[in-house]
Amino acid sequence: MMDPYVIQMNGNSSLPSVLDMHVNIGGRSSLPEKRKSRKARWSVKPSDMSNKTFNPIRAIVDSMKVKPNPDKTMIALSIGDPTVFGNLPTDPEVTQAMKDALDSGKYNGYAPSIGYLSSREEIASYYHRPEAPLEAKDVILTSGCSQAIELCLAVLANPGQNILVPRPGFSLYRTLAESMGIEVKLYNLLPEKSWEIDLKQLESLIDEKTACLIVNNPSNPCGSVFSRSHLQKILAVAARQCVPILADEIYGDMVFSDSTFEPLATLSSNVPILSCGGLAKRWLVPGWRLGWILIHDRRDIFGNEIRDGLVKLSQRILGPCTIVQGALKSILHRTPQEFYHNTLSLLKSNADLCYGALAAIPGLQPVRPSGAMYLMVGIEMEHFPEFENDVEFTERLVAEQSVHCLPATCFEYPNFFRVVITVPKVMMLEACSRIQEFCELHYHCAEGSQEECDK
Amino acid sequence: MMDPYVIQMNGNSSLPSVLDMHVNIGGRSSLPEKRKSRKARWSVKPSDMSNKTFNPIRAIVDSMKVKPNPDKTMIALSIGDPTVFGNLPTDPEVTQAMKDALDSGKYNGYAPSIGYLSSREEIASYYHRPEAPLEAKDVILTSGCSQAIELCLAVLANPGQNILVPRPGFSLYRTLAESMGIEVKLYNLLPEKSWEIDLKQLESLIDEKTACLIVNNPSNPCGSVFSRSHLQKILAVAARQCVPILADEIYGDMVFSDSTFEPLATLSSNVPILSCGGLAKRWLVPGWRLGWILIHDRRDIFGNEIRDGLVKLSQRILGPCTIVQGALKSILHRTPQEFYHNTLSLLKSNADLCYGALAAIPGLQPVRPSGAMYLMVGIEMEHFPEFENDVEFTERLVAEQSVHCLPATCFEYPNFFRVVITVPKVMMLEACSRIQEFCELHYHCAEGSQEECDK
Ligand SMILES: Cc1ncc(COP(=O)(O)O)c(C=O)c1O
Ligand SMILES: Cc1ncc(COP(=O)(O)O)c(C=O)c1O
Repeated sequence: MMDPYVIQMNGNSSLPSVLDMHVNIGGRSSLPEKRKSRKARWSVKPSDMSNKTFNPIRAIVDSMKVKPNPDKTMIALSIGDPTVFGNLPTDPEVTQAMKDALDSGKYNGYAPSIGYLSSREEIASYYHRPEAPLEAKDVILTSGCSQAIELCLAVLANPGQNILVPRPGFSLYRTLAESMGIEVKLYNLLPEKSWEIDLKQLESLIDEKTACLIVNNPSNPCGSVFSRSHLQKILAVAARQCVPILADEIYGDMVFSDSTFEPLATLSSNVPILSCGGLAKRWLVPGWRLGWILIHDRRDIFGNEIRDGLVKLSQRILGPCTIVQGALKSILHRTPQEFYHNTLSLLKSNADLCYGALAAIPGLQPVRPSGAMYLMVGIEMEHFPEFENDVEFTERLVAEQSVHCLPATCFEYPNFFRVVITVPKVMMLEACSRIQEFCELHYHCAEGSQEECDK
Repeated sequence: MMDPYVIQMNGNSSLPSVLDMHVNIGGRSSLPEKRKSRKARWSVKPSDMSNKTFNPIRAIVDSMKVKPNPDKTMIALSIGDPTVFGNLPTDPEVTQAMKDALDSGKYNGYAPSIGYLSSREEIASYYHRPEAPLEAKDVILTSGCSQAIELCLAVLANPGQNILVPRPGFSLYRTLAESMGIEVKLYNLLPEKSWEIDLKQLESLIDEKTACLIVNNPSNPCGSVFSRSHLQKILAVAARQCVPILADEIYGDMVFSDSTFEPLATLSSNVPILSCGGLAKRWLVPGWRLGWILIHDRRDIFGNEIRDGLVKLSQRILGPCTIVQGALKSILHRTPQEFYHNTLSLLKSNADLCYGALAAIPGLQPVRPSGAMYLMVGIEMEHFPEFENDVEFTERLVAEQSVHCLPATCFEYPNFFRVVITVPKVMMLEACSRIQEFCELHYHCAEGSQEECDK
């Protein structure tokens, strides 16, 4: 008799024949017992969590009709990856640091799941400030800033709790939160106040289920940089309401010369803050997936429990690539100041150029950025009656001018679009003039505002 | 009047003074409204998920009294990291491949969250078999095999469902499952049958809530390698019960010359299989965190839904380090056969040596391994009445002989211990002779078995 456990390999008939057979192991033959609750047939469905994991950018962009004009080369101002145009390579010292780490042969094995002690020490001393001291124990290395944010949300919030997220804001916050069953409450950023937070509205959202407040400074998508005094006001809300802060500072130090980046934790001694950062943006190596969490907790409000929680969560996937960890010391200390400076002056020059050009276009309202890599542009939709909304506006911009910008609906902020300013200068100029042509073609005077249109 | 949003920076009195103030934004002054449900005081607790994330190895090992004998150098046979002793460096071609990827400057930006198409193509063609075809769309690159397992469980199982996990087995399965609220059901491996699965008991565990069956071959901690016919029997259970398989094949191809590794998917055309693997073990670079999922679904049972679910889940942290991805092609094609061969002959030689030595020690029952990097040893506890269990046995082995092995309680299999066989040969020999000394010292004849002890 054929061993009923042997699955037949050929032919479509194998499944039924196996199903019909009865159990026979270890020589004992027995008729099949009635199975308690055996599955009659295949049915494999994705989990609720995967169904709830939803990236709004993908959903919007994938459904957009983005067939570029074949007569014009495509200019993608949509991609938040500073490396794609080749004009912003990382520094040779950064690459050399990786080669040295490889050659040492010391960084091939497992590191502790929160990162090598020596690498955490380097990050701690690099980001240490007298007003916000850091030691190695306050640092957790992660697989990109994305995982840093994931771990912070996972440790701070239970399903059913809520978090406060900026609008407009980076879409990953919602993606992660909703996949974990955490509710997202949106607080408003005010374009007319250089995207400062509407503090009163923010405070009104807080309830006893609020697990944390996400503050993203400098901001994606706004390119805004909060002043010291505005940050202090945000901290006052958190202190008054006893809400811990997740500070997404991935664009930390990426501010133009006329502004200053203040790490949030340097301005408070009592609000517990998890600051998330990484190599991605400032060192221009987003693919390397090295991020970190800096734990600021001088009043011992997080205590060991939150720290241990982060450590335990880090053990699920065991931290970032050890070669990058091994290279950290040199990356932090050998990268010349010039490199940071050059990046920022390119960004600043593109920002000025783009802001100037778009501000001159009737119907557009750009908001001048002070840092990061983006600029937001308001669309006076009443002057573009052909287009339903920002999605259609940007769709048609691709179709006619082959310029791709993300509609700010991706950031839950309709009737704006986001411009990425990491492109080469000529591309920036060309894009602006195409946007101008597009707007001039489609601009209509709004009813009852004839004077404006006469000018 | 002082702006009430400004938090005071100095002195302990800042919190109360801020708390006492009333709201004043944008020039409008108002008395504080009664807050609906404002938090009176700080209380930040770690989430249930982080509380449920529990690594049994850490819990057991951290609570062990492992003070080594100061007169003997420590020999750690406990660490599943083949790189720590320096005797198993990765191949120079592997390191060179990374340097080439760095020099190309092409791999610094974001890759798609499931990995570069070209890298997925390389993995697909490397693991393609006529009986188990693979294309790029069937490959998802992950941050180590750990994240591969995490994504598979996250897409296949909802909280309240269960998964089938080997006992003894790798502890991460339970850690991940329980953190997600998935129940773990343990099926037995049989030491007397070279750790084959007790198929009848396995099948008896399956119910309508069973989301998947984890098969780990070759095995950590057993070092066992399933025969083709045993794998076919496992597949027959899965086919009959309609349970998809997560095949943890991270030790794939790491088998000694007298056995063969059969990728599970090559033996079935109808059971949907997610095979997890990575560079960690075979290429001896566990720190680099490059893993993968191979989707085998010739009957379209997973369908697009499970594939899309995996893609969506990968977007949470955006995949593994791009430099390693960029190096994949050369790693797979340029690593000389000699390298794999040398690793395996070292492992095989240590396995033989260790098995032979321990088999000769009264009171120990090693099980001969056929692959991977481990060997399990049964302790005839009745002959070691001084020790409560495997934990105490291994504890005392450290204290007296400075030899550290993991008690198999870490793998839910009491009264065994696990030996890591990646150490240099002299260390392996020295460890075995110390284990012998230890056992001879503590061996007692069990009551009623005098004859045995006389020999
Ligand atoms: C505001 C913000 N936070 C976090 C991230 C994620 O950074 P990483 O690539 O290091 O995961 C990004 C990436 O664009 C971002 O814009
Ligand atoms: C059986 C098994 N699966 C998975 C893993 C995890 O592999 P990685 O380091 O690639 O995450 C290990 C690591 O030891 C293992 O032994």
